[in-house]
Amino acid sequence: MAATERIWTAGLVIIGDEILSGRTQDKNIGQIALWLNLQGIRLAEVRVVGDTVAAIVEAVNALRARNDYLFTTGGIGPTHDDITVDAIAEAVGVPVAVHPTARAALERYYATRGGVTEARLRMARVPEGADLIENRMSGAPGIRWGNIFIMAGVPHITAMMLDALSGSIEGGKPLLSETVGCWVAESEVADLLAATEKGHPGCQIGSYPFFREGKVGANFVIRSTERAVLESCRDDLAARLIAAGRTPVPGGI
Amino acid sequence: MAATERIWTAGLVIIGDEILSGRTQDKNIGQIALWLNLQGIRLAEVRVVGDTVAAIVEAVNALRARNDYLFTTGGIGPTHDDITVDAIAEAVGVPVAVHPTARAALERYYATRGGVTEARLRMARVPEGADLIENRMSGAPGIRWGNIFIMAGVPHITAMMLDALSGSIEGGKPLLSETVGCWVAESEVADLLAATEKGHPGCQIGSYPFFREGKVGANFVIRSTERAVLESCRDDLAARLIAAGRTPVPGGI
Repeated sequence: MAATERIWTAGLVIIGDEILSGRTQDKNIGQIALWLNLQGIRLAEVRVVGDTVAAIVEAVNALRARNDYLFTTGGIGPTHDDITVDAIAEAVGVPVAVHPTARAALERYYATRGGVTEARLRMARVPEGADLIENRMSGAPGIRWGNIFIMAGVPHITAMMLDALSGSIEGGKPLLSETVGCWVAESEVADLLAATEKGHPGCQIGSYPFFREGKVGANFVIRSTERAVLESCRDDLAARLIAAGRTPVPGGI
Repeated sequence: MAATERIWTAGLVIIGDEILSGRTQDKNIGQIALWLNLQGIRLAEVRVVGDTVAAIVEAVNALRARNDYLFTTGGIGPTHDDITVDAIAEAVGVPVAVHPTARAALERYYATRGGVTEARLRMARVPEGADLIENRMSGAPGIRWGNIFIMAGVPHITAMMLDALSGSIEGGKPLLSETVGCWVAESEVADLLAATEKGHPGCQIGSYPFFREGKVGANFVIRSTERAVLESCRDDLAARLIAAGRTPVPGGI
């Protein structure tokens, strides 16, 4: 069953010169990855591109062609460097249109804040045929066009948009994980790890070394969509570490 | 002069299932971006890919074809999931070879730590023809193959490898930046920003809104390789904000 199971994947395009210049530390990759896991969708690839239409179009079309879903963050505000909507409309080959619900939401939001200007109205522009993703934080909604999800760049606004989407996107079984830690140099147990992974089809084992309290150690993260397979691999790894004279730490260090 | 100046660019491939699963928050994009700026090189595009040879090969070949330099992070340790060297050798079409200097360094490092095992010797493997990048932190060096720089995944080890490379890679003029802050909704000054950018060729203005102390504000970051052009744009932006009844905050908020 596990071998033939449908795996749902997503691509992510992070849009913004501020990430590529190092000015801003990205936080959206991590939070979108974790949220996707909960929906039973795997983040398969991420691209970070600058604020140019050509770069966005190329990344969007490459990633949407080979994933079930595509997410973008950044570039949906009111200023001249916010070009995500135009780029995605170009990528999918539709014109840009003003969404009446988004316009109404902006009119409500700005009624006591100076009214809707032409710049603000930019935030109601969507690729034609799009639906809106609720944004309880500010006037500008997120946008869904087919399997493309256009989110904010500001992480806490993106978090609320993800919350609004939770449970509404089809996925498969979530990828589960178990961690076993050990105070050991990973190079000393490399063969043991490889043999354990090989002995448990459907599991991947990642090795994440660290240097802490003056000692080297590593956390071994086992991933699988099947609870029973995952636990069997975890227990086998612990037993092999004990047989090699090591002390496994359940749950990781 | 500025218009015809050679711009040096780099691509970056972040390799690791742990980033795509959300387990680990990436810190290498930011630190490599900032370091590249100091070398006069712009980070033009980043891809994050999982631990599979095909994904690494595709990303490496796409980004090295259109940038002066390519950097990778992750996957150079001793365990079965460390496949970066094999993937890059495949991407550039050379065999994998054991580098004698890397082998000697590992033998010295592990002389008092149990000796060099087959797993540890994996860390001396390089795409044939490569040079080493010093790693004063642990036994495994970074690798330079032509214009490809293969770095560690652990951020503080990557930091030391970058330090070892500083000043050794040709670049152009560093991209300079100046920031002007303002307690204003960016949508209220969007036209002003666009007009300012248009009036100063060679400058880009990014607008980064925030919500703090119960108020909205934004930082406007101006970027240029030319100090004089940059400062003229900054002063013009401040003057336009004042003319619009706003108070610019030099250096940002």
